[in-house]
Amino acid sequence: MSDLRRADYGLAQLLQFEHVAWFEDGKVRILDRRVYPTEIRYEICHSHTDVAQAIANMVTQSAGPYYAAAHGMTLAAWECRNSAAPMEYLRRAAYTLSHARPTTAVRMEAITNAALQAAETALANGKPLVPAMHTFAQELMERRYRNIAKCASYLVDQMPKSCTLLTQCFAETVVGLFIREAQHRGIDLRLICPETRPFLQGARLTASVAHQQNCPVHVISDNMPGLLLSEGKIDLFTSAADAICMDGTVINKVGTYQIALCAKEAGVPYFVTGAPDRKHAKGSDVPIEQRDGSALLEFRGIPTTLPGVQGLYPAFDRTPGRLVTGVVTDRGVFAPDRLADYFTDNDDDFPGA
Amino acid sequence: MSDLRRADYGLAQLLQFEHVAWFEDGKVRILDRRVYPTEIRYEICHSHTDVAQAIANMVTQSAGPYYAAAHGMTLAAWECRNSAAPMEYLRRAAYTLSHARPTTAVRMEAITNAALQAAETALANGKPLVPAMHTFAQELMERRYRNIAKCASYLVDQMPKSCTLLTQCFAETVVGLFIREAQHRGIDLRLICPETRPFLQGARLTASVAHQQNCPVHVISDNMPGLLLSEGKIDLFTSAADAICMDGTVINKVGTYQIALCAKEAGVPYFVTGAPDRKHAKGSDVPIEQRDGSALLEFRGIPTTLPGVQGLYPAFDRTPGRLVTGVVTDRGVFAPDRLADYFTDNDDDFPGA
Repeated sequence: MSDLRRADYGLAQLLQFEHVAWFEDGKVRILDRRVYPTEIRYEICHSHTDVAQAIANMVTQSAGPYYAAAHGMTLAAWECRNSAAPMEYLRRAAYTLSHARPTTAVRMEAITNAALQAAETALANGKPLVPAMHTFAQELMERRYRNIAKCASYLVDQMPKSCTLLTQCFAETVVGLFIREAQHRGIDLRLICPETRPFLQGARLTASVAHQQNCPVHVISDNMPGLLLSEGKIDLFTSAADAICMDGTVINKVGTYQIALCAKEAGVPYFVTGAPDRKHAKGSDVPIEQRDGSALLEFRGIPTTLPGVQGLYPAFDRTPGRLVTGVVTDRGVFAPDRLADYFTDNDDDFPGA
Repeated sequence: MSDLRRADYGLAQLLQFEHVAWFEDGKVRILDRRVYPTEIRYEICHSHTDVAQAIANMVTQSAGPYYAAAHGMTLAAWECRNSAAPMEYLRRAAYTLSHARPTTAVRMEAITNAALQAAETALANGKPLVPAMHTFAQELMERRYRNIAKCASYLVDQMPKSCTLLTQCFAETVVGLFIREAQHRGIDLRLICPETRPFLQGARLTASVAHQQNCPVHVISDNMPGLLLSEGKIDLFTSAADAICMDGTVINKVGTYQIALCAKEAGVPYFVTGAPDRKHAKGSDVPIEQRDGSALLEFRGIPTTLPGVQGLYPAFDRTPGRLVTGVVTDRGVFAPDRLADYFTDNDDDFPGA
């Protein structure tokens, strides 16, 4: 990773490629975002199945699993380095990695399929597999960075000169990039970050990235966005998405729907960043991951209710396109009912990745 | 307190009058709901100003402050027991206690005014002040209990035979009573309780009361009600209120508005329990308490974001009457635009207290 890019993000390990997920010496190292920023800890994965387990266990979220999957494929190539027929092994690894979490399986498959393609090309050209796969993972990160920088710039086009922006969960690279771009353009930007229970991604990750970039930021709890929207205190609501369906439905962290509904009621625009997922025709096609409800019964091991009470943990929700003002992509802003216009004839399944 | 009433609530200290707040031997003891149920701890107040401070510090919430104020007035009478002119002291104490928190000042004043009236009657009849004030406090609790039992019964009238009920924050006595009444009528009742950050009243208090009464209960985070409502998983949404204005506006724990909006969108009825506040003509008349934002930056002392990030903590929000299906009172259910019908000619300012 270039020194230039490192400087972009200051100290935020969670936005630096080689910290998010990285293959080296037969291991993949993943920054443990479950405890960031109060602790800087890395999960060390000795096999691609360890990587899949780390993704399932939420060691990394948002775009982190894409990077982890790409480096997990490099690790899988390393695991089968003495095999005469590595592709069969890599295909199984691709399935294991892409299906670690259900809601994002389509995007993950686009990445693992591209990794398999890179492996086949290397084999066809008689090139060694492990360095070829590692180069693929780095190029994926670089391509994604370039796309998201464009996306961030289109989002900043939507901001007024003085802008109080409401976020949801952790929108990853695009957060760092739109803050930088807004500052560059002299926009007076302030962030309001719902904390995102139970994992607190909004408080721990989004607010921390903003603070490290000297952007004023307030944390609220997840029951407060409706009030602030109704009081006219928010200029713009934005989130990333785990899937953007062709019917305009946004699948994102649970809570996005209720904020979008309140934003609509208050006349505040909601812009989702990312790219449409051509393989998801409708919102109802995407399964909503149900996680272990016990996360709702404690905070870092301290119980919050009596033993015997149950927890419910649907991780995502579906926001219908009628609540979405625009989908902000690397190719400009699209109305939620015009997402087909995003694609060109040459596109693969997930060109915005 | 009668043994019968104690049996009503099982082990739930937070619904037993003599645990909520109690004057004895020149002290008022208040159950500390900030740590309940993982710890059973009492705040011991040696003066009525201690009681006011405990209310301001959220040692007790929901209806707890009303009881604490009533017993705080008894303590004030004890403090000035050797004074030749106790009423002046009591009037100052009434102001201090009723204004401990801004949003509920009108309801609190109704209670402290009634306490002053009880003191004047005792003095006029040459009766000792402290026992008279203590009797007043106990009678207030008994009267409130009877009113809320009626209110609970009217709420249960609205439940289908199999009912998944969404709550918000901690609706106090009415929770215990509507669960008991629903069980008595053979209704298959299940509770879904948003946890209510940052103080977690829903997880700690509402879910615990339900569990102790053998009512199945699931805790969710405050970003999940919209999803469950949109999926048709909720039959009825209910909350208590810190104020019910004559224009139908409900002032309650922050988050009530966004749940009510999602309930309206999903066609799920929202019933608020309590009584209208005749002194609040409009929702905009009621000040929204802004609490210390640092509560949003930690959990029991564990930081959830980087030092330097700020927190915002508006404690209540305003839900307009158009989102309210009915106001469930001790005198039946009233449409939010017909609240004047609740009152009779003989009513004092807060007859539902």
